[in-house]
Amino acid sequence: MNEYDILKMIKSIIGDKYIGDDCAYLKDLGIVITQDSLVEDIHFKRAWCTPYQLGYKSIAVNISDILASGAEPKYISIALSIPNCTDSHFIEQFFKGAKSALNGAEIVGGDITGSENKILISITAIGKTDNKNISSRANAKSGYVVITKGNYGSSSAGLKELENNGNNLELIKSHLEPSLDYEFSQIISKTIKEPYAMMDTSDGLCDALFKIAEASGVKITIDYNKIKHLQNIDREQVLFGGEDYNLVAVIPDKYSDIIKNADIIGKVENFDGVRLDISGQKFSKYSELNVYNHFGENYG
Amino acid sequence: MNEYDILKMIKSIIGDKYIGDDCAYLKDLGIVITQDSLVEDIHFKRAWCTPYQLGYKSIAVNISDILASGAEPKYISIALSIPNCTDSHFIEQFFKGAKSALNGAEIVGGDITGSENKILISITAIGKTDNKNISSRANAKSGYVVITKGNYGSSSAGLKELENNGNNLELIKSHLEPSLDYEFSQIISKTIKEPYAMMDTSDGLCDALFKIAEASGVKITIDYNKIKHLQNIDREQVLFGGEDYNLVAVIPDKYSDIIKNADIIGKVENFDGVRLDISGQKFSKYSELNVYNHFGENYG
Repeated sequence: MNEYDILKMIKSIIGDKYIGDDCAYLKDLGIVITQDSLVEDIHFKRAWCTPYQLGYKSIAVNISDILASGAEPKYISIALSIPNCTDSHFIEQFFKGAKSALNGAEIVGGDITGSENKILISITAIGKTDNKNISSRANAKSGYVVITKGNYGSSSAGLKELENNGNNLELIKSHLEPSLDYEFSQIISKTIKEPYAMMDTSDGLCDALFKIAEASGVKITIDYNKIKHLQNIDREQVLFGGEDYNLVAVIPDKYSDIIKNADIIGKVENFDGVRLDISGQKFSKYSELNVYNHFGENYG
Repeated sequence: MNEYDILKMIKSIIGDKYIGDDCAYLKDLGIVITQDSLVEDIHFKRAWCTPYQLGYKSIAVNISDILASGAEPKYISIALSIPNCTDSHFIEQFFKGAKSALNGAEIVGGDITGSENKILISITAIGKTDNKNISSRANAKSGYVVITKGNYGSSSAGLKELENNGNNLELIKSHLEPSLDYEFSQIISKTIKEPYAMMDTSDGLCDALFKIAEASGVKITIDYNKIKHLQNIDREQVLFGGEDYNLVAVIPDKYSDIIKNADIIGKVENFDGVRLDISGQKFSKYSELNVYNHFGENYG
C-alpha cells in the first residue's frame, strides 16, 4: 500500500476537513497545530549527529511548519522514547538543542517513555494565528509571483556528505542544523491581506511548488536561473533535494518586494495541462517528480 | 538515571512553568494540551490486542488526561510510525478504533512515517477550557472530600490475564478498552467554583492520591472499604494497579453529592508527616508506593 492510498483511506475514515496543509488550522481556538515524528535509523542516525543537533532539528522541522502557515510559534510538546541505556548526557544535550530552535516558542510538556533499542521522537507544535493571515496551499492565483530566500540543495548535498564520509562542514551543517526564516514568515502573514500560499521546502522545492499548483488548480512557471544555490550543487539536488527548510510563498504581484533580498523565481499562470514548468522542464503528474522520498508524510 | 532525576534535569533546562499536571494549561489560548506515546512491546503487544483496540486505547489515554483537567476534548493529532510490511487492515482498524474513543473530539492530522520493525504511536490531545474550572494537583485543601466512580484493579487484573493466557473477558476488556467518564469530568468542572484537584488513575489510585497530597501539601485519608472493585481483585491491584482510567477528584465538601452514584472514599486533612493513609496503611514518601512502574511518565 503506497502513501497516497494510505492517506486516502485515513481521510475516508476521519474526514478531510483539516487534512491538506502541513498544519491544521483550528479557527475556533485561533491556533495551528502540527506533529512530526522522527525514528532512529529511518529519519536520523545517531552516528551522524550530536544529541544537541538532534534536539535542534526535531524542533526546527515542526517550527518550520508553523512558520509556513504564517502563524507565530508559541508552544511545543516533546515525546521522547529512549532505550534504558541512554545516558543523561544525551537527554541533557537533546533538550538544550531543542531549546535553541524554539524561535520564541516555549516547551510545555510531553512524555518520556522507554523503548527497546531505538530512539523515537514525536513533536507537536502550536502556533497562534491572531492578527495573521494564515496560508493555504489552495490559495495561489494566476498573476501571483513565487518568492523564496536561501540556497537550495545544500541539505541534500550535506546528507550525501554524511553518507559518503565527506567533510564539507558547510553542507553537513545545512543538513543537521537548517536555519529557519522567522522574519520571512511573519512579514508575509502580517502584511498580505489577500489569500496566499506558503510552504516550507522540507520535501524539496519542486515538491512544494507542485503541491501548491495542484491544490490551487493553476500552473507555476519557474526560471531555474533565479534559484540560488552553492557551487557544485547539481540541478537535481536544487530542485528535488529535501530538508532545506526554506520558505516559498506564492503571493500577489504587488507584494513582490516586501521581503528584503528575497528571490522572485517564478509566476502563476492558468492551468493548461502542465502543473509545473521549470525553465522548460514540465511536470503534469505528481508521480513525474523525482522527489526525495522518505515514505510517508505529514497528513495534517 | 531514574525517572525522578530525568524530570529534574529536563525542568532545569526548560523550566517548570507548565510541568506538574498531566495536561499543560495554556491560558492565553484557552486550551489544555497533553501528549502520550505508546511503543510496541513496551506499552502494548500486537498479539494481545486487535488494531481496533490499539487505536481505541491510544486515543482514550489522552482523552482521559483532558477529562482529568476538566476541559472539553476538542482536537486530536495522531503520529503513527509503522514498519513497511504493515497491512492496510491494521491502519484501517486502528483509525476506526481511534474514532470510537474521541468523546466529541476531532482528529485533525498528524504524521505517518516508516519504522524499522516496531509500531510507534504518539498522540496529542487538545481540550478547550472556556467556561470550565480547570483542575490542578496542587488545589486540594484540608476539609475537602475525595470522590471517584468505577471499579479499581480490573485493568491490572486484565493485564495479568493476558500475561497468563487467562480468559476472563470482562477483565481483559477493562485493560484493552477502558471506558472514560466524560460526564464526571464535565459536571465537576462546570459546577465547582473553588479550586479543586482531579486526576485520572492511569498509574493507579494511590499514585494519583499521593501526587495530589504532595503537590497540595496535605494528607489524604482513605477508607479502603469504600473503594469499589470486582470480586477476586486483591488489595494491591485495587490500590496500585494502573490503567483503570477512572477519575478521582478532591473537592469542597459541599459538592460531595454532585455526581450521581459516585463514591466518597476519603477526606483531606492537614499534613502531619503522613501523605496518604489507606485505612491505617501509611505512606510518607513516594518511593514507599509500590506503584505500577512503566518507566517514565508524562511530564506535562
